[in-house]
Amino acid sequence: MSTTDLQKQFYSLIEKELVNLNLPDRPVSLYKPFIYALEAGGKRIRPILTMLASGMCNGEINDSIPAALAVEILHNFTLVHDDIMDSADTRRGKPSVFKKWDENVAILSGDVMFAGAMQQLAYYGHNDTYSKQEFTALYDVFLKATVTVCEGQALDMEFVDREDVELHEYIEMISGKTAALLSASLEMGAIAAHATSIQREELALIGNEMGIAFQIQDDLLDAIADPIKFGKRPGGDIIEGKKTYLTILALKRSTKSEISIIKETLLAKNPSEKSVEQVLTIMKDLDVIDDVAAEIETRYKKAFELLTHFPNSEFKEEFKNLLTFLRFRDH
Amino acid sequence: MSTTDLQKQFYSLIEKELVNLNLPDRPVSLYKPFIYALEAGGKRIRPILTMLASGMCNGEINDSIPAALAVEILHNFTLVHDDIMDSADTRRGKPSVFKKWDENVAILSGDVMFAGAMQQLAYYGHNDTYSKQEFTALYDVFLKATVTVCEGQALDMEFVDREDVELHEYIEMISGKTAALLSASLEMGAIAAHATSIQREELALIGNEMGIAFQIQDDLLDAIADPIKFGKRPGGDIIEGKKTYLTILALKRSTKSEISIIKETLLAKNPSEKSVEQVLTIMKDLDVIDDVAAEIETRYKKAFELLTHFPNSEFKEEFKNLLTFLRFRDH
Repeated sequence: MSTTDLQKQFYSLIEKELVNLNLPDRPVSLYKPFIYALEAGGKRIRPILTMLASGMCNGEINDSIPAALAVEILHNFTLVHDDIMDSADTRRGKPSVFKKWDENVAILSGDVMFAGAMQQLAYYGHNDTYSKQEFTALYDVFLKATVTVCEGQALDMEFVDREDVELHEYIEMISGKTAALLSASLEMGAIAAHATSIQREELALIGNEMGIAFQIQDDLLDAIADPIKFGKRPGGDIIEGKKTYLTILALKRSTKSEISIIKETLLAKNPSEKSVEQVLTIMKDLDVIDDVAAEIETRYKKAFELLTHFPNSEFKEEFKNLLTFLRFRDH
Repeated sequence: MSTTDLQKQFYSLIEKELVNLNLPDRPVSLYKPFIYALEAGGKRIRPILTMLASGMCNGEINDSIPAALAVEILHNFTLVHDDIMDSADTRRGKPSVFKKWDENVAILSGDVMFAGAMQQLAYYGHNDTYSKQEFTALYDVFLKATVTVCEGQALDMEFVDREDVELHEYIEMISGKTAALLSASLEMGAIAAHATSIQREELALIGNEMGIAFQIQDDLLDAIADPIKFGKRPGGDIIEGKKTYLTILALKRSTKSEISIIKETLLAKNPSEKSVEQVLTIMKDLDVIDDVAAEIETRYKKAFELLTHFPNSEFKEEFKNLLTFLRFRDH
């Protein structure tokens, strides 16, 4: 992540606030995992987006912090529960909560993190500069995003057992799992800045476009990874048998014999080097790689276009830096 | 449960509202368990309390329904997650959610139920008869109760591995697991009725007293169960090795030799009939049974005393009926 000064400053602020949440000491089995999950790090992209959006709408940055903390705590709550569901033993190089403690501890501390995230928003209820409408909007946006994240995770789990996932369903899934909370992070920053409803909607749209673009990009980068540059071979997702935007699009465009090759490779426990290469070649030949790259580009462009509707500011510049960095990332 | 007309009426209303939540159809793995958990039944005591409290404070009953639904959905969310943690295969005679589907489905549908419970409160955000303060108070009370319920469940799990649980810790645990949400149910009914802060506080206190009394009563009734009347032998908790208000109090008052008998019986996998009898006799001889009965009586009396502060109404009468029924229940 390219962190220029403003991003670094926001990052440090969030880190400081996260260790100063004043959580109770006990029950130990509830709050130790809560703190552990938050201290595990991460890029804090969501709270930084909230603060940047707030700045772009001419808000007081300090007033955006509770909303920023709410989205970051919520995000970490979803990771704690997702790690149980995905049997993921590690998270950011450390044991995941359910691995370090157990499933029960992870379920319950996740639940209290969700409640704790919501409690951050009480700031806007008790602060007289916020109208009841603004306070209500913050809750509505936050809860809608939470529900959509759950729906995305549910679709993701359902897709594992399905062979007929359509592109629009895949987009729906990643919209839920990734874009919904990015979108809410930006929209909540706007509300915390007393922004107009047009600004709110535009920031929500930007978050949605960048979230979907980011996720499809993950799929694309996996297929075109450069082993020399990153020590990572292309086609990791194919070896793991994952459904991605690329495999779904490829299956849609393939002949019967190509479909067999792709499906057999995805289902194989240890697919041969040759069959993985074959699938990658089919993707290239069917313009899947190029078309997905174009789709990502379209979405980033849309986000940049929407940004032009906002007055120039250091916050907008920084947001553009961040978007540019994401757009041209190669891993 | 003694259901007179008003309770029956509220019960039916809640049942009707719960099937008309207009939840989405899909993802199926998310919303089917949500609906299943809510349809599993139960006495709907919490939402009925919310509605009675609202009536007692001269509120419009219809305006208390979203708060009532919020507490009932939240309660069922905690059951869905608790059943995973307690490995409880059945719930109200039907397979629990995690048993009918799996743990992942139960974790995720529980999460979305929590969010769905909160979304019910949006009604008060969008209804102009509620001030921002009232709306904020509803969220604050609701979230504080949720956090306290999680803390209670965490303490309960921690107590399993501890031999030195103190009475005040046990009270803290049941205050969390049971009393917190009963208290919030009543207080939220008061807020939904635009009640004064004194009425709110008094109803919250009533909920706390009745919640603790109810829970200790469960412990007591287990020790004095009448096999002929209910087909249930006394001392079931002792056989299961459960820590209860009675065992903790008994241990506190016991001599060294009595302590050995109690601890050995609790730890035994299949304690002999004789040793269970011995523990029950120790409890009686040390006045544990009588003192616990007195403690329960004190708490119910406190609740009744607080009720006299409210003007007479059919709602107050019905609440008194309900409390009287609970106070004199024998199983």
